[in-house]
This record gives sequence, C-alpha cells and structure tokens, in this order.
Amino acid sequence: MRHLLSTRDLLRDDAIGLLDIAEDMSEVQNREVKKLPTLRGKTVVNLFFEDSTRTRTSFEVAAKRLSADVINFSAKGSSVSKGESLKDTAQTLAAMGADGVVIRHSASGAPQVLAQSGWIDAGVVNAGDGTHEHPTQALLDAFTMRRRIHGDAARGRDLDGVSVMIVGDVLHSRVARSNLWLLETLGAHVTFVAPATLVPVGASTWPADIRYDLDAALAEVQPDVMMMLRIQQERMNAAFFPTTREYSRQWGLDDERLLALRPDSIVMHPGPMNRGLEISSRAADSAQSTVIEQVANGVSIRMAVLYSLLSGDREARS
Amino acid sequence: MRHLLSTRDLLRDDAIGLLDIAEDMSEVQNREVKKLPTLRGKTVVNLFFEDSTRTRTSFEVAAKRLSADVINFSAKGSSVSKGESLKDTAQTLAAMGADGVVIRHSASGAPQVLAQSGWIDAGVVNAGDGTHEHPTQALLDAFTMRRRIHGDAARGRDLDGVSVMIVGDVLHSRVARSNLWLLETLGAHVTFVAPATLVPVGASTWPADIRYDLDAALAEVQPDVMMMLRIQQERMNAAFFPTTREYSRQWGLDDERLLALRPDSIVMHPGPMNRGLEISSRAADSAQSTVIEQVANGVSIRMAVLYSLLSGDREARS
Amino acid sequence: MRHLLSTRDLLRDDAIGLLDIAEDMSEVQNREVKKLPTLRGKTVVNLFFEDSTRTRTSFEVAAKRLSADVINFSAKGSSVSKGESLKDTAQTLAAMGADGVVIRHSASGAPQVLAQSGWIDAGVVNAGDGTHEHPTQALLDAFTMRRRIHGDAARGRDLDGVSVMIVGDVLHSRVARSNLWLLETLGAHVTFVAPATLVPVGASTWPADIRYDLDAALAEVQPDVMMMLRIQQERMNAAFFPTTREYSRQWGLDDERLLALRPDSIVMHPGPMNRGLEISSRAADSAQSTVIEQVANGVSIRMAVLYSLLSGDREARS
Repeated sequence: MRHLLSTRDLLRDDAIGLLDIAEDMSEVQNREVKKLPTLRGKTVVNLFFEDSTRTRTSFEVAAKRLSADVINFSAKGSSVSKGESLKDTAQTLAAMGADGVVIRHSASGAPQVLAQSGWIDAGVVNAGDGTHEHPTQALLDAFTMRRRIHGDAARGRDLDGVSVMIVGDVLHSRVARSNLWLLETLGAHVTFVAPATLVPVGASTWPADIRYDLDAALAEVQPDVMMMLRIQQERMNAAFFPTTREYSRQWGLDDERLLALRPDSIVMHPGPMNRGLEISSRAADSAQSTVIEQVANGVSIRMAVLYSLLSGDREARS
Repeated sequence: MRHLLSTRDLLRDDAIGLLDIAEDMSEVQNREVKKLPTLRGKTVVNLFFEDSTRTRTSFEVAAKRLSADVINFSAKGSSVSKGESLKDTAQTLAAMGADGVVIRHSASGAPQVLAQSGWIDAGVVNAGDGTHEHPTQALLDAFTMRRRIHGDAARGRDLDGVSVMIVGDVLHSRVARSNLWLLETLGAHVTFVAPATLVPVGASTWPADIRYDLDAALAEVQPDVMMMLRIQQERMNAAFFPTTREYSRQWGLDDERLLALRPDSIVMHPGPMNRGLEISSRAADSAQSTVIEQVANGVSIRMAVLYSLLSGDREARS
Repeated sequence: MRHLLSTRDLLRDDAIGLLDIAEDMSEVQNREVKKLPTLRGKTVVNLFFEDSTRTRTSFEVAAKRLSADVINFSAKGSSVSKGESLKDTAQTLAAMGADGVVIRHSASGAPQVLAQSGWIDAGVVNAGDGTHEHPTQALLDAFTMRRRIHGDAARGRDLDGVSVMIVGDVLHSRVARSNLWLLETLGAHVTFVAPATLVPVGASTWPADIRYDLDAALAEVQPDVMMMLRIQQERMNAAFFPTTREYSRQWGLDDERLLALRPDSIVMHPGPMNRGLEISSRAADSAQSTVIEQVANGVSIRMAVLYSLLSGDREARS
C-alpha cells in the first residue's frame, strides 16, 4: 500500500491486514516504554487545511510512538487552498524530504489529487476531505467493533453478518461514507437513519438501507452497533436542518432509546460529542459505549497505517 | 506524588525533595548533552486553555530534556472550556496514552477536577488555574531563594526565618497564593503589600502580614526577598485599579526604593516584566535581581516535577 | 563562526566552507535514515515575530535531522515586538538553555542586536529581518547555482564569472540584498532589473548593474541565472507600485521571455511563487527551473549552518 485515500477501494485482505497490525500496535500502548524505533529518521508532515486538534494530535502521537519526526504544517487561512497552490505546497514538502503527508482538506478529493499528481513521492494519508472520506476513522471504528465482538480472537476476522446502524447528518458526513464502504467490504450490513433532508441524493444506489424514523428502525433492525454521527453546530441553523430540539427528540440517542437497545449491542461516536444533542450523557458513558476505546484505537490504527505506508522500501511497492 | 495541583497541601518533606531533585536537574543543564533518557516513551501533553508562551515553553523544554514526547494541545477558543467538555477532553487525552498532562486553565480548580475525577490516569500538573495556584512558579521561586541564601549547601534545607515581601495585585495573583502556602511550609515569613482594593477579602485569615504602604513596610520589615508581582495590563482600567502612574509611584520598585533595600536582599519577578511599571529597569537588571535565574530554575523545577510524577511505576504510588 | 547574521561580512572561505558542509548534508537526505546524532541534547528555538511557515518548517526539519530538540516560539502579535522586550525574550530563551535561536523579525537589524547584545550566548541565525538580509536564502541559492554549474565537481568552488540577473521588487527585498553580497564575494556578477520606483536610493553604490527594461537587459546580458523575486501581495496597491497587469507584462518571466533565455541558463525563485504574476507556470515548471531544488537545498544549507554554529565547543570560537 502506498497511500490511504479512501476505504472505497480498500481490498478486504488489505483492510484486515491493517486491523491486524493495529492489534500489534495496541500492545505497544500498554508497555512501559510506548515507542518503536521503526520510523526513526522519517519525517511525517501534518498538513491541515482545516483545524482538527483531535485528529492532528492522534496522528502526531502515532507518528512519535514510531519515532518519526513530526512537522505540523498548518495551512489554514493561508493562500494555499487553491488547486495550483496545493501543487506548490506538495512539491515544497517533497523537496524538504517528507516521507508521509497526513492531509485534512475542505475539498473532497484533495488527498487523491496530492497522491496521484506525481508532485510528491511521500505516502499520503487522507485525514478527512470535504464530505468524501475519513478512512482512518472507519478503520478505527471497524477495529473497535471487531474487538468488542470477537475479543482476543479478533485477528484475521472480518465483520461478517454484523448489523450497524448509523444515525445523523449522513449528507455531510465523510465518517458515514468511509464506514459504509469499509463495513460492506468486511461483510457487515449498514442501515442509515437520518432526517429526509440530510440524506444525499445518490444514497439510493448505496449498499445500505435508508430509514427516516429512528424508533421504527430500531425496533425492526435491533442492530449490533449503534453509531451516532456528530452534529456540526455551524450547520444547525440552515433551512434544511431540523431545530436542535427536534433533532434531539427524533434522532438523538436519549436514555429511553438506550434502554431499547439490545444489551449486548455497542454504542459508538467519532467524537467530539454534543452531549444532550445527538447522544445523551448516560448513553455516552454507559458500558455499551466505545467512545473512549475508539480514541485509543485511533492511535493504534494510525500507527498501523503510518507503519504500512512508510517503513521499509517504498520503491518496492505498487 | 501522583499530581502537583497546589502548594497548599504540599508536605514540607515533599517540597524539599522536589527542590533537591531540581538541584540534580540543574546540573544536567550545564552538560554538553543536556538530556536524560528518563522519560523516553512517555507522552506529556501541554493542555493550555489560556495562552502562555513562556510557561508552555518552559514545560516543553523540561519534558524534552527528559526525552519525553511532547504534544501541544491548545484548547483556547474551542468549545472545550465548559465543565463537561473538560471531561471529554481529559478522557480523549487518557485514551491517547498521555502519561502527564500540564494544564493551564482560567477556572480556579480545573486541574483538581481533572486529577480527582478519575477521567484520566495521567499525572496532572497545574500550570496556573484562575486566581487559585501556580505551584511550579512557587517552587522555582523557593528554589531560587534557597540557592541565593544557602549556596552550595542548599540541599535538604528549608527557608526558616527568611522574610519575603510580595508586592502588587494580590487579589488576582495565583503566584502570590502559591508562594504564600509554600513559603509558610518552608518556614519563611510573608508580608503582602498591595493597594487596599487589590487585597482579597479572606486575606485576613492568611498566615501573612498585610500592608498597604510600601515605603513604611520596607523601612520596618527590611525583607530578605522583594518579590514584585506582574501587573496584568487588561485589568488596569478597572474601577478598583489605581492608574498606571499612581501604581508605579506607590507600589513600584523604582530606583529609589531599590537603594533602600538591604544590599544582600534579592529582587524577584515571575516575568514577563512591565519595566517602568511594577519594576524599574535598574532594579530588574541589578545584581540583586534573580529574574533570569528564575527562568533557568523554572526548567530545573519542571524537570523535577515531571520526573517525580512520571518516572517509574505510577501504580505503586498513593 | 558564532552567528549567521548577514552575507555582507561573510568571508569567501567561510561561505565556501558552508556550501561544502551542505554538500555532505545533502547526502544525508538520500539515506534511508535521514538523521545525524550531531546536535542531540541541543535546543534550537524558532523565534518568529512574523509568520513564515515555509522558512520555519525548513529550519525545523533541518534541526530535527541533526537530532536537536526544536521549540517553536511564536512571538507574533504579542507584546515582545519592542526593543526592550526583545531583550527580555532573549534573556528568557538563554536562561531556558537555548543553544541556537533562529529569528525572523520585521525590524531590520533585530538579529544583529540579539547576537551582539550579550543578552544571550546562543548562536543566532537570521531567518529574515525587515528589508535587510535573509542569509540562508542566499546561501541556498548559491549552493543551487554551484551545483547546476559545476555538478559533482562543485566542492571547493566559487561562482567566478557567473552572470546573475535578479528581477523584481528590489526595494523591499532582503533576498535581493543577501544574494548581492554573497554573489559578489563568490565572484559572480549581478544585474538588478526593477521598476524605477522599486529600486532603493542607495543602489547606485552597490556592486551591481541596475536596469529598468527587462527585455533590453535580457538581450544584452544573456545571464547564466535568472532569479525572479516574489511580489508581496500586500504592497501591490501602493502608489509607487505598478498594477498587477503592468508588472506582469513588463517584469514577469512569461513564456516568451523564457524562450528568449539561453537554453543552459537556470531560472530561480525563492518561493512561494505567484504563478502568472512574476513567473509563468511554464517557466516555473521548466527543466531550467530550480525552484524545487532550492527548497531541498534549503534544508541542507540550514543543516550546515546549525551544524557549524552549534556543534562542538562554542567557547573555543571567536
């Protein structure tokens, strides 16, 4: 693997391979010295055109645990947001010797452009592009499900037959999309639940069920996994958006709906949570919640991705 | 010691222990390779809800000298300033594997909440919380006094009988409070001098003398240590605040007052200084001034604190 | 060498010595592990009073490749921009144990003040001061010319007889000035071409030809090197400034002028480029262009400078 741009074209074996490497990496986290020498002398650049302290920090921790040098290159607000300038920025980073570039960009497809342009030889990791994809989020979610479901016997397994319900603003969510493609590849079944105005036009062609009524869907599907999407506060006053109160009442995971879940099901959220809006505090802090595990697994997954992309001889790869 | 939250409940032996470790650390600063391998593989997060380049840098230098990985997690201006969100931020940092969290927060008590909540297993260091405490500042001040007074024979000693005069905006100063508690524990005697409107209501119960007239107090007390507090520019136009001119004239350490000090007394300031306001340039740059030593000692103290909190087996501690 | 403040007083042998060390450093960039242990335990502070992501990043990469600890100390917008405060900032960094300070400042001469004040014992590197100098830029430019011209036989050589044309806003350009002094020292001949309002008054005393008509100058000089200066967007609406269109038409390196260059000449730009303004995309991306090499050589030069200033026994130096 040379780049990680999306989960849509990630092969099943490659996906399971990454999850298995992340199992090894998660063991490093429990050691007294949480550090591997693997990427010593490599330079990882966090190229963030949008702020995201959590994602940036997770990649920074992961890279440092592998002994890489990390450069935070914040491009937000600068002139580098236009197409041609991305080229110059990329060539600059390449010339400085970047081995890996972790890119967050508001434009869907920017990481792909970066990787396929030939501007840069570095491994490119998509850390979220527009409404397109956020592949490491989907991988850490799959890792979290696999562990909860298969426990110590998780290695090598997929998510065959697992039922996942993803609830919220599907229209704008790259997390929803990345999860959809990966979960399908791993054999899970996805049901989206969203207000009708927050379902994208093309969703009818997706390998997923689309529902609008959360209570009806819950009663019928009884999912293994409930994944609540984060509501972006800045979208909430738009015409197509329900009011906060309406959203919470109809699509939030409140205490009552928490009780309606199967006791062995799990509750997920990519964070940061709007407690009381898309998820109640009781749900967020319940034993079924994997919110904190997801953060820890995020570091393991990002270590696995950086390791896979940057260690050894990159020339030898396809 | 698991956390450093305040000097108020720091035991005498623990305080002297930290000062003694800082003596060792200050020797590392003089080496050709100013680095110890002690915290290799540990992650220290600087969680700053308020800007403070100097304090953040001092902790960053200290952590890097101990070979820790440092993550700067600036939370300023983001949505994480509310109580519940501190919980989610803390749990996120814990899940990412933070071994130590250095927190600066505008709310008095925030570090305590972080440490005692159970949200995070990491060692918590208070780097300044509201008007409450700034314990590493007090420790570096005590370290500086001990060295000036006892020289090479400082190890193991306290500040018995030392007379310290602290001058300025006591009402808003966490530095004043942290110094008060630590100095009392170490046997020094504290006199506060401040405009009447800048003395907190409860100060009459403190183990300190309160004076309002600096010249009278100086003549009477003849202190071993003069500590000038920094005036926060943003407070200076408030109704309860003297004008700049009035402040400087009545409570500033000007050249005349410098000459009135005992020649063997020392002049301290936590920095950054408002030269010409609370301290004259001559006083700041005089041989009696310890301003620069305080900065250097700050790195040694922070190395000592991080070392004490994060090295070895944290489980074994109370 | 204790500091690198300007190229004006850089001796020929010292300049060639730095270029030769940079040759060694550029070989490190091609290794699997791009890291030398040389500056382990040293602390390099990037003290940037003006934003410059590219220059700051280049120094950060260079310092980390030499295993130094890097502290980014952004002073922009803070109260530290006045003369006296630079003193306090410098003394603070010295007290924290900074071995090297890389300073970018809007005031011409600030790095000189820092180095010669006695406030700090650290090696000082000028990373751009006002309209005065940007010596590492000139060194990387000379390195780039020397390599293109002399290839593998570059070591030990100067630029005797090389003809360099520098085009653009000479009035405000520290890059132009630093290049002038260094190129003269190395035996090259410099021709400046600029709008008459963008030539400084004192330029008639410089060891360079001054021209106003680019096409005439090109036809006559047939330079070995064409160096296009960056237009600062914020200056473009000033009264003394040509319009964008006028500038581009008269002083830009457009496709037609590119074709008029000697095929073996090289095209340089310090970046970031305003494509279509001072340089066309075809010129920027042509085989004659060294824009990307300049970035890569920038890391090598900065490694060479940091190595020369900070390794070994600083006390032994003049």
